[in-house]
Amino acid sequence: MPAITALTNQQIRLARRPNGMPVRDDWSFTTEEVGEPGPGGVLVKTLSLSLDPAMRGWMNDAKSYIPPVGIGEVMRAGGIGRVIASSNASFAEGDLVTGALGVQQYALFAEDQLRKAGLAKIDLRLGTIGQWLNALGMPGMTAYFGLLDVGQPRPGDTVVVSGAAGAVGQTVGQLARIKGCRVVGIAGGRAKCDFVVNTLGFDGCIDYKAGNVKAGLKEHCPKGVDVYFDNVGGDILDDVLARLGRGARIVICGAISQYNNTTPVQGPKNYLSLLVNRASMKGMVVFDYADRYPQAIAELSGYLKDGRLKSREDVVEGIANFPDALVKLFTGENFGKLVLQVAQA
Amino acid sequence: MPAITALTNQQIRLARRPNGMPVRDDWSFTTEEVGEPGPGGVLVKTLSLSLDPAMRGWMNDAKSYIPPVGIGEVMRAGGIGRVIASSNASFAEGDLVTGALGVQQYALFAEDQLRKAGLAKIDLRLGTIGQWLNALGMPGMTAYFGLLDVGQPRPGDTVVVSGAAGAVGQTVGQLARIKGCRVVGIAGGRAKCDFVVNTLGFDGCIDYKAGNVKAGLKEHCPKGVDVYFDNVGGDILDDVLARLGRGARIVICGAISQYNNTTPVQGPKNYLSLLVNRASMKGMVVFDYADRYPQAIAELSGYLKDGRLKSREDVVEGIANFPDALVKLFTGENFGKLVLQVAQA
Repeated sequence: MPAITALTNQQIRLARRPNGMPVRDDWSFTTEEVGEPGPGGVLVKTLSLSLDPAMRGWMNDAKSYIPPVGIGEVMRAGGIGRVIASSNASFAEGDLVTGALGVQQYALFAEDQLRKAGLAKIDLRLGTIGQWLNALGMPGMTAYFGLLDVGQPRPGDTVVVSGAAGAVGQTVGQLARIKGCRVVGIAGGRAKCDFVVNTLGFDGCIDYKAGNVKAGLKEHCPKGVDVYFDNVGGDILDDVLARLGRGARIVICGAISQYNNTTPVQGPKNYLSLLVNRASMKGMVVFDYADRYPQAIAELSGYLKDGRLKSREDVVEGIANFPDALVKLFTGENFGKLVLQVAQA
Repeated sequence: MPAITALTNQQIRLARRPNGMPVRDDWSFTTEEVGEPGPGGVLVKTLSLSLDPAMRGWMNDAKSYIPPVGIGEVMRAGGIGRVIASSNASFAEGDLVTGALGVQQYALFAEDQLRKAGLAKIDLRLGTIGQWLNALGMPGMTAYFGLLDVGQPRPGDTVVVSGAAGAVGQTVGQLARIKGCRVVGIAGGRAKCDFVVNTLGFDGCIDYKAGNVKAGLKEHCPKGVDVYFDNVGGDILDDVLARLGRGARIVICGAISQYNNTTPVQGPKNYLSLLVNRASMKGMVVFDYADRYPQAIAELSGYLKDGRLKSREDVVEGIANFPDALVKLFTGENFGKLVLQVAQA
């Protein structure tokens, strides 16, 4: 390793707030010298970053569950890195860690920033780096607590998940199968649907690009939908609302179809189906479950090891490709958990 | 009492399905002779009928929590009547009863129809006929179970209820006060707001006809809304969604603003506030709680007697006025629980 002061840090910062889909000019590329960690501080070299739909929300100047990224700030991103210098007893040089590293090659944390960044060591015996960003990372945690705590699936329930081939959706569906449910995915395109059914073992999958989601739901969910894990919002949410079973639970995890709107969000016009079916719709934010991540990681790691849970990543290389890679999430071009590989492990 | 066979029964039947607001021609007026009860049957003379927003839904040919009223059928309505002939050991001539009597002067039940009609004796020691149609009737049961079971208010919570001067709203608000909550109503017009605050004891009321509901919510709910009991839907639901507190519960009881739409229902475009605030939106249908009505009636009757619960009825006289009276619910002209008095008690 070269001396720290000889390292430069490429960073991607939010230059302005996007109007609709983010474009190149919404970002600025900066380079700065890497500093030494202060007392209790840690310097991390970024290996891989997680690209998530939620990032689009962080770019807006709107009240949400966390403050927006400020103009001129390094874009927020979770990822995996290696500790290359540490003045903190909890972290040693060489440790692999997860946390909010940001879209940059190196992340320097003062001691009092470590908790907020959620910096924590990871154990490769539990899963690969890719798995730590997917099934054992935020998507997996979101799937685990959203499905089990909020969705409350019972064996025999029909569980529907949108964005089924995506990071959260793939774990939701597989976990629901493990818990004894019938699982129907909704995904865009034949390849994703084939993957969801043939590789992940879902009972069925509706290709929303190929045709009528309503008809697909009728075919695949003859007794109605008991749990709907919604990652997309929009028309698909309305189609599922029209197919709810008695006492159904809808988990509102996201609404990717609406994140780049320049017009108001499309509200679910079939929401009165909640009344007719005594159903509920509940929102969730994964950070609320942080105290219970270890339990979820232990369980999911077990499923990864015994082969019941698969974790598919879509890896884009090079920090400079961040702007284009992010857009893939919203056009549906990614296939599996989207990961930006910044450096080799 | 004249001989039964000398009685004629005026009835109002659904002639066709309304398009938007119901009009006179959607109804037909018929007269038929009153029959004698068969073995186990009961004949009831209608005294007062409950007019409810839900009636509008029963007139549509749509899947809902109960089948629609068929074309040519007597319009469904709950009410209070007096048994004038009975071949059933559970009911004696002279008994006051509640049940689905329909919009007609006499309701003849065969033995096997009694259960479906929910025919049950009422006790005037617990409340007046008006109260039995309001706080002790379906509106009160809806308020009680919707607020307490679905809304789960805790002492100190801020509870908002729309349609606050209406049948369900008035009991929701007063009951929430009794349970130790701060209560803010939303109602149309100064007179209703004054009533809600000065007579019913709500902590505040927002007149949606006078101005900005959003600004009113900001003023009256500085810490956000913990429970919202929604009777109206539409823009008001969106305004409340934008003001939710962390972990808020929205009870979807109805959407009177949407019942006469000739365009699709307006979906709540702020529904992603459920995610940001980890909030839930849940539908309820009062009939699910039928086994627990006696418990609710006993409790609410106690509050009526000790003066903590008031019950305001808006009485229209004469069965022929049913079509016009029903429309008052949707224009907001009724003031309190709307009751159609068909005969003197």
